[in-house]
Amino acid sequence: MTSTQDATGQNDRYERGLALLQHIGGQERPAVLDSLADIAPDLGRITVEFGYGDILSRPGLTLRERQLATVGALAALGNAAPQLRFHIDGALNVGATRTEIVEVMVHASVYAGFPAALNGLTAAKEVFATRTDLPAEPAAAGAPDGDRFERGSAKLAEVDGHAGEQVIASLQDIAPDFARILIEFSFGDIYSRPGLDLKTRELVTVAMCTALGVAPQLGVHIHGLLNVGGTETEVVEVLIQMAGYAGFPAALNGIGVARTVFAERESHQNSDV
Amino acid sequence: MTSTQDATGQNDRYERGLALLQHIGGQERPAVLDSLADIAPDLGRITVEFGYGDILSRPGLTLRERQLATVGALAALGNAAPQLRFHIDGALNVGATRTEIVEVMVHASVYAGFPAALNGLTAAKEVFATRTDLPAEPAAAGAPDGDRFERGSAKLAEVDGHAGEQVIASLQDIAPDFARILIEFSFGDIYSRPGLDLKTRELVTVAMCTALGVAPQLGVHIHGLLNVGGTETEVVEVLIQMAGYAGFPAALNGIGVARTVFAERESHQNSDV
Amino acid sequence: MTSTQDATGQNDRYERGLALLQHIGGQERPAVLDSLADIAPDLGRITVEFGYGDILSRPGLTLRERQLATVGALAALGNAAPQLRFHIDGALNVGATRTEIVEVMVHASVYAGFPAALNGLTAAKEVFATRTDLPAEPAAAGAPDGDRFERGSAKLAEVDGHAGEQVIASLQDIAPDFARILIEFSFGDIYSRPGLDLKTRELVTVAMCTALGVAPQLGVHIHGLLNVGGTETEVVEVLIQMAGYAGFPAALNGIGVARTVFAERESHQNSDV
Repeated sequence: MTSTQDATGQNDRYERGLALLQHIGGQERPAVLDSLADIAPDLGRITVEFGYGDILSRPGLTLRERQLATVGALAALGNAAPQLRFHIDGALNVGATRTEIVEVMVHASVYAGFPAALNGLTAAKEVFATRTDLPAEPAAAGAPDGDRFERGSAKLAEVDGHAGEQVIASLQDIAPDFARILIEFSFGDIYSRPGLDLKTRELVTVAMCTALGVAPQLGVHIHGLLNVGGTETEVVEVLIQMAGYAGFPAALNGIGVARTVFAERESHQNSDV
Repeated sequence: MTSTQDATGQNDRYERGLALLQHIGGQERPAVLDSLADIAPDLGRITVEFGYGDILSRPGLTLRERQLATVGALAALGNAAPQLRFHIDGALNVGATRTEIVEVMVHASVYAGFPAALNGLTAAKEVFATRTDLPAEPAAAGAPDGDRFERGSAKLAEVDGHAGEQVIASLQDIAPDFARILIEFSFGDIYSRPGLDLKTRELVTVAMCTALGVAPQLGVHIHGLLNVGGTETEVVEVLIQMAGYAGFPAALNGIGVARTVFAERESHQNSDV
Repeated sequence: MTSTQDATGQNDRYERGLALLQHIGGQERPAVLDSLADIAPDLGRITVEFGYGDILSRPGLTLRERQLATVGALAALGNAAPQLRFHIDGALNVGATRTEIVEVMVHASVYAGFPAALNGLTAAKEVFATRTDLPAEPAAAGAPDGDRFERGSAKLAEVDGHAGEQVIASLQDIAPDFARILIEFSFGDIYSRPGLDLKTRELVTVAMCTALGVAPQLGVHIHGLLNVGGTETEVVEVLIQMAGYAGFPAALNGIGVARTVFAERESHQNSDV
């Protein structure tokens, strides 16, 4: 746990972090360092060492997954437009497509409301306008065919399984229309869209719910991520990453939810034996 | 639960939603559709179908009430200035007065703090400056006469009844001054103001508390809305509407609080028999 | 509890508040009053009477402490840039240094994430650029020497004591790396920095956790503030102050957490006898 620090006060965490920040940001000299140089140069160093050298360098998630999770969380929080633009650009630099980024914003309408989605798309448009280097992508999907309720029910079962059914059942006595709306809109309209694979969609959902601090839904969607192919390691990685974008309290409270979910699944497996 | 979809991919949800969006927004061609046309046209369609065709078209609240609830929630969240301006304008288009909108912002000082109130008023000023079509309104109220504590205590009893008294009692051992401040400022200064009727004030309070995710206060003010003439249907409607502006987790957690409050009132009524 | 109101509708709360607002804001005629004059003059009056005359005039915290707490809370919320700038300027007017304000922003990276810290520093730079009247301050600290984990562990023990150890222990089964990261970054890198004394750091932490509504961490850091020399009165004062900047629900929920912490400490003391 000691760091190797050279004569310039830099160390391997700094060098590893700087290389990663250069890669994600697509800049030889990261703008964040210049912007902090005259007011808080230490925070520039810490951003490189901790944010990029420690956290984003961790294995367990691809850089594309990490950037899409960050984009989702910042869009959901809705209060950090400069960083949202930076990480949209960064997502494009590590393999995410414009379509995936648009889908993250559309997905935010479910977890943070339409204003968050619309303002996220405004940020995306601003970034996309600067990126004339990107290849053409297929046009966005049209309205899916078929019945929204049937499609939504199937998707809800696929993603949230038993936990999702419980949410729906719990609404029947008080707001049955809202149960129908949740299935039709959230799962029939949004979760059923192409353009972002289901596992990444749930990863982004976990990031959004962690950043917003909505514990019950975070529990449902940690189950969801595990249901659609995610691993406990991936859950923990996205929670740790959120410490840097929404603060340690958000990450710690998310870890508490994950502990409960993991225990539920372990106990459920054991009872199946 | 199937939709009628015509050859252009539109359906009755779209047509109903578009007519309502045109009415609220006061624009033949809603700007949100143009803004999304090149990046996420599906979200434009979904905004019309879901946001306006499904949610805002529901019975149970007037459009004026719905718009004032949205204005309150967006002012409290403080992170969606473009949408706040749009919905202030929309509130004026469906019968809300400038005085009512100002009062919603002043009310936000209690639930989201003075910065939220001040920034909400800045948005209101920007919108009002574009609306030379509106009739003059009476000048704002001056300072109410009389004792703030007496006036606040009476208003607290009227709105929050037993739940409000419990909050005050619970503060006596730890922060008795804060109990007095809460009565004098929140209820003596703000709740006692003219310009926004008490039922709408509580409806807006429920919207704000749902958007902010403050469950204990949401419970107190669901009681409050029911105490001043609101119905359980109106409570559920404003909670459902918040799904579109603060996300489904906020709405679902609000429904959970409402279930508890409705059960408390049912059990209380039964014990009175 | 009656107010003395003179012929102009003003009273001692107004006069006391106006004098304090002039002092903090450094303006003979506060801009907030002009900005509200044509839209909500009552809110201008209430801001003076309640915000400054009632709350910020209270004893129990210095104005420097109060302003740094407000700066921390607004930086953490990240949705009120005009007020953040005003209160940074105000902090400078009542004795806080630029270094302390920078440290509050750096500290925000732990509790609200790096975007909050970066945007807070942008606001600080904007304010500092207008303040050519301030004396030079020593340059910012460089990277501390020594092992981050050892330094962090010692600082965690100093600040959070038993509550902090419990947090770390609870992470061992699910995210042991995150326990190490929390110690190394939060306590080894940030809490160990010079430029802001430990008691003020914890006071700002309590303000941030109250504004963000993260109850478990608020509990840990109310303990922390009391562990590093703060008093129960100071805890209550900063919670009351947050009513004005994050709303009464945030303050009330914070008071609930404080009640539990105070009782824990009382019971612990009694069991020591």
